[in-house]
Amino acid sequence: MENDNFDVIVIGAGPAGYVAAIRCAQLGLKTACIDNWTNQQGEPSPGGTCLNVGCIPSKALLESSALYAQTQSGLEQHGISVGAPEMNVKTMQSRKDAVVNKLTSGIGQLFKANKITFVHGKGRVLPSRQVAVMDLKSGKINNTLVGKNVIIATGSTPIELPGFKFDHKKVLDSADTLALKSTPEHLLIVGAGVIGLELGSVWARLGAKVTILEAMDTLLPMVDAQVAREAARQFKKQGLNIILGARVSTYTANKSSVTVDYELKGESVQIDADKIAVMVGRKANLDGVLAPDCEIETSPQGKIVVNEYCQTNAPGVWAIGDVVRGPMLAHKGSEEGVLVAESIASGKTFSLDLECIPSVIYTHPEIAWIGKTEAELKEAGTDFNKGHFPFAASGRAQASGHTDGMSKVLSDKKTDRILGTHIIGEHASELLAEAVFAMQYQGSAEDLGRTIHSHPSLSEALKEAALNVHKEAIHKMN
Amino acid sequence: MENDNFDVIVIGAGPAGYVAAIRCAQLGLKTACIDNWTNQQGEPSPGGTCLNVGCIPSKALLESSALYAQTQSGLEQHGISVGAPEMNVKTMQSRKDAVVNKLTSGIGQLFKANKITFVHGKGRVLPSRQVAVMDLKSGKINNTLVGKNVIIATGSTPIELPGFKFDHKKVLDSADTLALKSTPEHLLIVGAGVIGLELGSVWARLGAKVTILEAMDTLLPMVDAQVAREAARQFKKQGLNIILGARVSTYTANKSSVTVDYELKGESVQIDADKIAVMVGRKANLDGVLAPDCEIETSPQGKIVVNEYCQTNAPGVWAIGDVVRGPMLAHKGSEEGVLVAESIASGKTFSLDLECIPSVIYTHPEIAWIGKTEAELKEAGTDFNKGHFPFAASGRAQASGHTDGMSKVLSDKKTDRILGTHIIGEHASELLAEAVFAMQYQGSAEDLGRTIHSHPSLSEALKEAALNVHKEAIHKMN
Repeated sequence: MENDNFDVIVIGAGPAGYVAAIRCAQLGLKTACIDNWTNQQGEPSPGGTCLNVGCIPSKALLESSALYAQTQSGLEQHGISVGAPEMNVKTMQSRKDAVVNKLTSGIGQLFKANKITFVHGKGRVLPSRQVAVMDLKSGKINNTLVGKNVIIATGSTPIELPGFKFDHKKVLDSADTLALKSTPEHLLIVGAGVIGLELGSVWARLGAKVTILEAMDTLLPMVDAQVAREAARQFKKQGLNIILGARVSTYTANKSSVTVDYELKGESVQIDADKIAVMVGRKANLDGVLAPDCEIETSPQGKIVVNEYCQTNAPGVWAIGDVVRGPMLAHKGSEEGVLVAESIASGKTFSLDLECIPSVIYTHPEIAWIGKTEAELKEAGTDFNKGHFPFAASGRAQASGHTDGMSKVLSDKKTDRILGTHIIGEHASELLAEAVFAMQYQGSAEDLGRTIHSHPSLSEALKEAALNVHKEAIHKMN
Repeated sequence: MENDNFDVIVIGAGPAGYVAAIRCAQLGLKTACIDNWTNQQGEPSPGGTCLNVGCIPSKALLESSALYAQTQSGLEQHGISVGAPEMNVKTMQSRKDAVVNKLTSGIGQLFKANKITFVHGKGRVLPSRQVAVMDLKSGKINNTLVGKNVIIATGSTPIELPGFKFDHKKVLDSADTLALKSTPEHLLIVGAGVIGLELGSVWARLGAKVTILEAMDTLLPMVDAQVAREAARQFKKQGLNIILGARVSTYTANKSSVTVDYELKGESVQIDADKIAVMVGRKANLDGVLAPDCEIETSPQGKIVVNEYCQTNAPGVWAIGDVVRGPMLAHKGSEEGVLVAESIASGKTFSLDLECIPSVIYTHPEIAWIGKTEAELKEAGTDFNKGHFPFAASGRAQASGHTDGMSKVLSDKKTDRILGTHIIGEHASELLAEAVFAMQYQGSAEDLGRTIHSHPSLSEALKEAALNVHKEAIHKMN
């Protein structure tokens, strides 16, 4: 490898890092990207958690398992009869692996096409924008690159609970839970967050008994309460047994099972399961990333401290994605990657509006939202109007049979500017895009309600929610 | 029925008329709505063509038939095995009928809740904003209502081809084709427009041989050519046999089949089929609607002439939806209904931007577009930039396995204002909503490209197409 000076060295090829590298290269910057992800064949596998063991493989399994569930019980009403379906978990997993391989190798191709120097190794930030590349086997320094700029994008890793060390056999992290080779009889999930609910859904659809223990007393506290109530109702119907206020304390490994102790309303409870999947959040991945003498400031939460432009305290060193403040979401990291690349190339600085980032939970139905919830607006003392609209009143939802769910728009009482949009229902992840655009450009509920929407489409349910803000929905009494 | 003076009398309870009536009532206007649609039980069935025999029932059948097709060949890759699926067409049709009944009776409930006087009968416009209501059996005048305003929203009916009179047995219109009680062996469709392609898809998925004869030499000339080419490729893969440049001339009814004569490149060709479905467009429905002395102006095309505010030449008489200029689309009619209601209530006048109306074809994949095609821009001499992005490069598309299709954005070379957006692919109908909002508020391709999109989602494919306008797409070489 050439040890030339680079304009930019990106550490990490997840959705923050690889996007930053590509945008840098597009802008004519000489760019290197160092990444240590390795697939089962020992080859580089750029794409980070998102592509390798996160967003993408989980969506592949959610799709396969949703089809299985639909084949079991969703076809009869349409007049379709089939024999009892069977799921070959191995085939499902091979398909998922093929999807992952296709996309990770696609990033490799994009790197080549954009003339990015890709380095398979572990990057470590030294002083003065030097980056050591360590051999993945020996751990020794192979090479040291020097960059006019360094972008740290090393992502995050699952948080371990005290007493529940990941052994990847009985105590699983999310990657293990994605890779199960057969359907467990009883899967115990700790944490009813986004990942716990998505992977719980997958295995429940495939026939596992799924119990989710959640320490908090509220399900999905970050989600608008009206939406969260609807979600709880749907999850219950699907057989997900979610126990709130349950704090796990310890577990015992039996021969082929585990016994978990948890506390519920002051009582000690025991529960047996095949495996425990702990999905209680993620922490910034800075393991070995910062040499002590690089003097880059980190927060008490273990994140790299950056300003609104993703600049660290070290000149020329930037950090983006899960290693810095803000939500740990792939698209947030990617957008920061683009903005930092453009800041470097232009000498100007650009920032991302952290208040305007969409979130999605890919359960069935999907849950998607952006901006404030009712509770947050009340707490902030903001006067607002609200409108909601049930999917059951949508012609498209009735025609397709996916009538669960609702959309909801919250807008400022004085200016009518949209402050929050919340959707639970079929294709919520896609429907939200319009609301994101509207909010990014400070649109009003009236703007959304006045916009013509294709009939029949589920997107009409968003229009009607916006109309309902001013009690003007057509297909609902206001 | 009270024969009081009404503020507004709406004739027609299709998506233009019933929405107009509801919005009028919301605004405090004393409103009557006259509609002659009758269901099989002889009861009123408001909702017009759209709900009774158009948008909604076709989407119900498209959903059922898509599930059947997927069950036949889309599950194996996911690891799901099932016995050979069977389709009970009667059950499929009952489900469709139930969806229609639910939605039409929903309109009845909305009318009641909004205190709209609903009249089941045929409305006929007399001079001076009087409307005669004719009995549906006897055809005699039951009553005459007087309104300060009259809104004509009587919709449209299928066009008959010379020599192909609808006998509803061998020569079918779209309503007949929706209602078939069993899958024909060979269905011959005349007209490869939106309705022909949708209903052709339904019956082809259920096992019919489907031949579509199209008089024009181009498939979907109103669609961007790049999208239309992709559509043709997909339809071919699905076994739809579309013959362009084929002009039907006559047919012979045999005992249990028909023989159709058509001309192709100057040659006469004969083709046998079970049934002929003629779907060559629709014409304004003014049959008996205008009393000669009401003196309302109609165009040579048989539409009511209106200005941009949907005002006819007769003071206080408005017309909306399929009976006036502009595309024959439910959402266009609904939006005109809202604007006319608001014009009446406020004394101001509001108009709809006819250049900014989305269109959708609900085939698989779906095709959705708004604004100008490349060809239209070239013809107008407009300088433009273009960007497109294939669904195959979308992580969400890969994860779900729906990788066919692309999105495309055209923007003004000088201002970057979006002039057209074209999508073919899974959920195109929903994805387009964001582009419609952007165009309605004169957004630029950069606006769309700069907006953060949830990852992974198909909506990212629209963002990337917008980025590609300026050669800045991330997941594609520009």
